[in-house]
Amino acid sequence: MRLTLKTGPEKAAEVYTGSAVFQELKTWLGNLSSVTDSIFILTDKKTRSFCLEHLTSVVPSLQLAEVLEIPAGEKNKSLKSAEHLWNILAGKGASRSSLLINLGGGVITDLGGFVASTFKRGIPFIHIPTSLLGMVDAAIGGKTGINLGDIKNQVGTFHHPDAIFIHTGFLGTLDSYGLLSGFAEIIKTALVADIVLWEKLGSIRLQDLLNRQEDEAIWEDLVSASVAIKCSIVEQDFREKNLREILNFGHTIGHAFESLSLQKNRNPLSHGHAIALGMICESYLSTVKTGLNSKDRDAIIHMIFPDYEYYPLHGEDLDFLMDFIGHDKKRTGSGSRFSLLKSPGNAISGVPCEAGEIIESIDFYRTLER
Amino acid sequence: MRLTLKTGPEKAAEVYTGSAVFQELKTWLGNLSSVTDSIFILTDKKTRSFCLEHLTSVVPSLQLAEVLEIPAGEKNKSLKSAEHLWNILAGKGASRSSLLINLGGGVITDLGGFVASTFKRGIPFIHIPTSLLGMVDAAIGGKTGINLGDIKNQVGTFHHPDAIFIHTGFLGTLDSYGLLSGFAEIIKTALVADIVLWEKLGSIRLQDLLNRQEDEAIWEDLVSASVAIKCSIVEQDFREKNLREILNFGHTIGHAFESLSLQKNRNPLSHGHAIALGMICESYLSTVKTGLNSKDRDAIIHMIFPDYEYYPLHGEDLDFLMDFIGHDKKRTGSGSRFSLLKSPGNAISGVPCEAGEIIESIDFYRTLER
Repeated sequence: MRLTLKTGPEKAAEVYTGSAVFQELKTWLGNLSSVTDSIFILTDKKTRSFCLEHLTSVVPSLQLAEVLEIPAGEKNKSLKSAEHLWNILAGKGASRSSLLINLGGGVITDLGGFVASTFKRGIPFIHIPTSLLGMVDAAIGGKTGINLGDIKNQVGTFHHPDAIFIHTGFLGTLDSYGLLSGFAEIIKTALVADIVLWEKLGSIRLQDLLNRQEDEAIWEDLVSASVAIKCSIVEQDFREKNLREILNFGHTIGHAFESLSLQKNRNPLSHGHAIALGMICESYLSTVKTGLNSKDRDAIIHMIFPDYEYYPLHGEDLDFLMDFIGHDKKRTGSGSRFSLLKSPGNAISGVPCEAGEIIESIDFYRTLER
Repeated sequence: MRLTLKTGPEKAAEVYTGSAVFQELKTWLGNLSSVTDSIFILTDKKTRSFCLEHLTSVVPSLQLAEVLEIPAGEKNKSLKSAEHLWNILAGKGASRSSLLINLGGGVITDLGGFVASTFKRGIPFIHIPTSLLGMVDAAIGGKTGINLGDIKNQVGTFHHPDAIFIHTGFLGTLDSYGLLSGFAEIIKTALVADIVLWEKLGSIRLQDLLNRQEDEAIWEDLVSASVAIKCSIVEQDFREKNLREILNFGHTIGHAFESLSLQKNRNPLSHGHAIALGMICESYLSTVKTGLNSKDRDAIIHMIFPDYEYYPLHGEDLDFLMDFIGHDKKRTGSGSRFSLLKSPGNAISGVPCEAGEIIESIDFYRTLER
């Protein structure tokens, strides 16, 4: 399947999914060969051993590409990594006719997208996401970024890759931790924009799904549906001025959970796990602010628990969360604004919430501890 | 006068010139106030003392803005400066509703544009160029950038500011070194795209002009003409895929001169001075490759010498220049491609030149030593 992500007359990203995706990649690279003087593949150590060999065996021309490897992990989505990569590209004579292929999860596609979109003011790049989170979220939508100290995605660009190739076969390399992380974004996408997908998710037992990560058909189906929804939203509002903000449902409080767990450095939460917890708080806020009924809120909680573990909060954690929410980069002016649900499949962005209401939603979350 | 720089449906930069420019800035800021939560002014130490006070006296609302100051000089157009500024903006709670005003020459507008276009994936920013080079070149066209080590503008974005306010009164703060640097880009703009402006320049004695930097009418006229030409070219090819490349006339070899002089660290050439010398070499190349007649080439040399000093080349300098030209970021694939003149006012880009031809053009330059 091929979708197109437009942002204006200038630039459109092609999104390929389905079983013929590597064949389409071969064709795409073949069409490109006349204008490309060298190909680089950015990946991390882990992805290299799990996915790169498979990629180069089905697309042999990529065996000649120069591989740029960074260590795996969120902490490498840093300015230091970006500087390292810019210097390598410069040293190896990369030009505006070179191509960077980002092969990996969200860290690789965010970092590689930022590096490519700023090296010589932008060189061509494509994403081949290998994690579920990457396939349904990070690689789709042209957001690139790096963390600045502890603040996630503080520096970045809006810049679509030239194309995105989604091969759900790579999900077979993930454990349930990785699958759960990505699955949270599928839940979110359904909740903010597609009641049909939300009902489909309700009919699936998550544990069953996690045990079938090599069952391409079912994942293909969920991933394609989620990608299509996200593309449609992004295309209507590339620079996140309004509509696109609904995709932040669960993220304002979720990012705070994520940052808290990173800062505490004991089993940090995966991005999706943190977003799942954020969705619980923000579903509560939705009942208070935007009329979500409590039955739907409970269905959301039921979708999340017990597969996503409860993350306990202690002493000054609430202060940290509240302080962090003040830093969220989507806030405009005073007060925090949230993307909340009116009902499953129907979200609204820019809802101002008072500190007291946010605290109440976190208190609600705490009543769910088991 | 107000021009508009469009790049697509998404984003257009408004360009204000003329004597009412600060009045227009006041109106512009007034219209913005509802969506802006804080205003930052980036400037350097030198510009702060010469220009900031004037600006805040005519636009008093800016007295409340937070001033971010960096030391003056090209070496501060660095990743280190960008990181410093991102951290300050984050620490001061800047958001996507904040505004960054870049007040200064090309270093400030390139660096500030890069920082603003990448902070939280892009916050609003405007340029108020204070140097002639900034007014006619650096601030116009949406190229932002920083240097990576010795390589100029290796990292950056294509991203228009929201508006550009050009007050030629600031030229009164410049010495002839600064005026000459900017004037080279006016010469270039005329040569690549406007025979009328080229003929007008021919009727002006550069020395007279340099002695009249406070004569706003004459500068206003030249700056407005040059800005209008550049806007028209940029609008047709924002991302420099073809037409915009003609603006690189003089720059392939000029950048090499500039880098050589910086590396030698003895009285480094100003950007414009280096480009003027590059135009001499590339005018020679134009006679060989694109049919520029030698009378026009000599008129170009006559426009440049003796106001721009000859820069002597020694021993291994030629190797450095040739090596550097291989690094030029606009090259595509093998061989160096140049933007050359068919005749004054008529340029063509993407002309491949052999190493032997480039060396010949530098040898020609050396025959002009006095």
